[in-house]
Amino acid sequence: MAIITLTTDFGEKDHFAGATKGAIYSEMPEIRIVDISHSISPFNTSEAAYIIQNAYRSFPKGTIHVIGIDSELNAENKHIALKLDDHYFICANNGIMSMICSEIVPEKIVEINIHDKIQTSFPVLDVFVKVACHIARGGTLEVIGKTITQIKPIKNIVPYVNEDKSQIIGSVLYIDNYGNVVTNIKKSFFEAIQKGRSFEISARSYKFKTIYKKYSDFVNFEIPEDKRHDEGRGLVVFNSGSFLEIAVYKSNSATVGSASTLMGLNLMDTVSINFLKD
Amino acid sequence: MAIITLTTDFGEKDHFAGATKGAIYSEMPEIRIVDISHSISPFNTSEAAYIIQNAYRSFPKGTIHVIGIDSELNAENKHIALKLDDHYFICANNGIMSMICSEIVPEKIVEINIHDKIQTSFPVLDVFVKVACHIARGGTLEVIGKTITQIKPIKNIVPYVNEDKSQIIGSVLYIDNYGNVVTNIKKSFFEAIQKGRSFEISARSYKFKTIYKKYSDFVNFEIPEDKRHDEGRGLVVFNSGSFLEIAVYKSNSATVGSASTLMGLNLMDTVSINFLKD
Amino acid sequence: MAIITLTTDFGEKDHFAGATKGAIYSEMPEIRIVDISHSISPFNTSEAAYIIQNAYRSFPKGTIHVIGIDSELNAENKHIALKLDDHYFICANNGIMSMICSEIVPEKIVEINIHDKIQTSFPVLDVFVKVACHIARGGTLEVIGKTITQIKPIKNIVPYVNEDKSQIIGSVLYIDNYGNVVTNIKKSFFEAIQKGRSFEISARSYKFKTIYKKYSDFVNFEIPEDKRHDEGRGLVVFNSGSFLEIAVYKSNSATVGSASTLMGLNLMDTVSINFLKD
Repeated sequence: MAIITLTTDFGEKDHFAGATKGAIYSEMPEIRIVDISHSISPFNTSEAAYIIQNAYRSFPKGTIHVIGIDSELNAENKHIALKLDDHYFICANNGIMSMICSEIVPEKIVEINIHDKIQTSFPVLDVFVKVACHIARGGTLEVIGKTITQIKPIKNIVPYVNEDKSQIIGSVLYIDNYGNVVTNIKKSFFEAIQKGRSFEISARSYKFKTIYKKYSDFVNFEIPEDKRHDEGRGLVVFNSGSFLEIAVYKSNSATVGSASTLMGLNLMDTVSINFLKD
Repeated sequence: MAIITLTTDFGEKDHFAGATKGAIYSEMPEIRIVDISHSISPFNTSEAAYIIQNAYRSFPKGTIHVIGIDSELNAENKHIALKLDDHYFICANNGIMSMICSEIVPEKIVEINIHDKIQTSFPVLDVFVKVACHIARGGTLEVIGKTITQIKPIKNIVPYVNEDKSQIIGSVLYIDNYGNVVTNIKKSFFEAIQKGRSFEISARSYKFKTIYKKYSDFVNFEIPEDKRHDEGRGLVVFNSGSFLEIAVYKSNSATVGSASTLMGLNLMDTVSINFLKD
Repeated sequence: MAIITLTTDFGEKDHFAGATKGAIYSEMPEIRIVDISHSISPFNTSEAAYIIQNAYRSFPKGTIHVIGIDSELNAENKHIALKLDDHYFICANNGIMSMICSEIVPEKIVEINIHDKIQTSFPVLDVFVKVACHIARGGTLEVIGKTITQIKPIKNIVPYVNEDKSQIIGSVLYIDNYGNVVTNIKKSFFEAIQKGRSFEISARSYKFKTIYKKYSDFVNFEIPEDKRHDEGRGLVVFNSGSFLEIAVYKSNSATVGSASTLMGLNLMDTVSINFLKD
């Protein structure tokens, strides 16, 4: 039996997520539903793109991912369903899927047309649930829409590289629960430009020359614990999703501070990498 | 196998919701539990009434809804179980069910008396779980309580209509995750008074003369996108629960603003509708 | 089939909890996963200790509890798995389990060593999931680690008693969703020192001489409701986890106020009990 996941901006308080689950179980009593997140910032398609890209891979092949962000149907915002990497995705054609699709070519994309006459302000409940259950029952994408080959891009996803490849200019894509600052610079992208050169990462007035594999590689455990002052200090890692991340050791925005609060880094801020001549 | 839903003010951090689920699975390993919300404002029975009314209908017939808001047993706050619209509800007799019951007559109401000697500050765990599992096993309400015919009303649920029916005076019932402002004026109530007349909706100094079916009906898609300025502008819809809602297009309290933040509308504030003479 | 519970500081927004569930279902499609909390304050092992201690007992014997707080593997922070009270716990050896272990002796503790070569900044996904599934399939702890007999203690968990046993000095351990202030003084500990004596509880300038069994025992229901002024007034109870708690009747930090907001009580603040001479 397939899994249906939910990624939305419904929040934790409203009835929207609960009602959606009720509707799914009404159609398919035995299905499994997993919440990925209901706390995406309202209408924030970049955040949703980041979350779904990092979460989907852990699920079994065949999982159906419902993404409910800015999904009201209108002349400029159509509903789509995709098959990609043996997973299914149902969402509005508003750029959410362009981050994943920039790395993996979709096997199939359809623009959903089973519902052209449904007037609804709650399309996740009234449309996406039906599409998800159709797929879960083994139905094909062709039955529910017409094949398309292009989806809408999302802006500012790809970092900029200058002409002589001495600099990458990226930006802040996501700020996580620890206040760590995730950039749009992926490890594979960085390494293709770096070609082994030394580098300096700049974010506002902060500079970093090392990228760690995990947070505590930053700590020198040969110094006695009471003489180290690691907590609250900045560092750079490639995070578990392979994005370059400016972090703070044992970060907590409410106590020792975080990369976001201590360095004043916000969504869309610039993070640049300068490569040094050999 | 039945579904048990949970709607509480336990919050997302404390152990209360987890412990409740553990207790249910200890009694019934195969049951399905669905969270509707644990983020109702503490002791806010009106919010809980709004959430459960909007969520329950999506679930299959026979679902058992546990509502844990202000549920400590005392001389003035008894525990009840209801059967209504082929769903079961377990909660305190504190007004939460009066919103649903004003529209649908309960088939059965009992005041729970199996536990008169249990002293507990966690009645959801110690009482409601037992009642829910009793019902899930097919037990009847009569076994766990004595039949009653009245439940406590909730205040300020029904809007006021003046004598010559030229005005409805409603109030703000709920503010949702997008900052949209939900009033206590339902579509059926509005239409019964309106009888096709033109109208003007007033909330503080803001006036509206149109009620949309969905949010993006507000947008004129014939104007090029870069010449429209729709985001952050106010509009009125009947929301997916059929409540009159003052909204903001692509609302986000933290960025473009919301109906609540931009118009200064809070819980219990007045929203009135004046009908115009033909 | 066993249950796996999750208690983490991942927050509600990030993909970490969703990805963890996807990985578990990929290994064991039929398992049941229950969220206890993902909103522990980042790196706060005391909060996690309090939450898991209060939640685990409600689950069936054999449940596997994954605790993802400060769990990155390094020279000073090893991974452990415990069997205790017929439940399994998987976490870092950072003090989280010392609160439970101070009351119940573990049957078995192992330091996990199956993964000494895995470099990961997401050990819950890459290590704890594998260990949890191993146990869920009936595997033994000995296979995944070497037996140890001691775990790291957590600081400030046990209250202080003065020499002539006339005073207990405790501290604030947790502030719950209602703003109620939970101390580290347990009922059994209190009663062992009290030996029936009268007492006075002090928190800042506030004094209490009664400990209630449940919140509404504080109310005198013989006084007509409109002449009582109970909401927002302070009281002391032993809460459902048997911890001494300074509460406010029908508490809500955002409206009537809470013990934390009204009395200015924060984590680690002192709460003392003076016993009176007979």
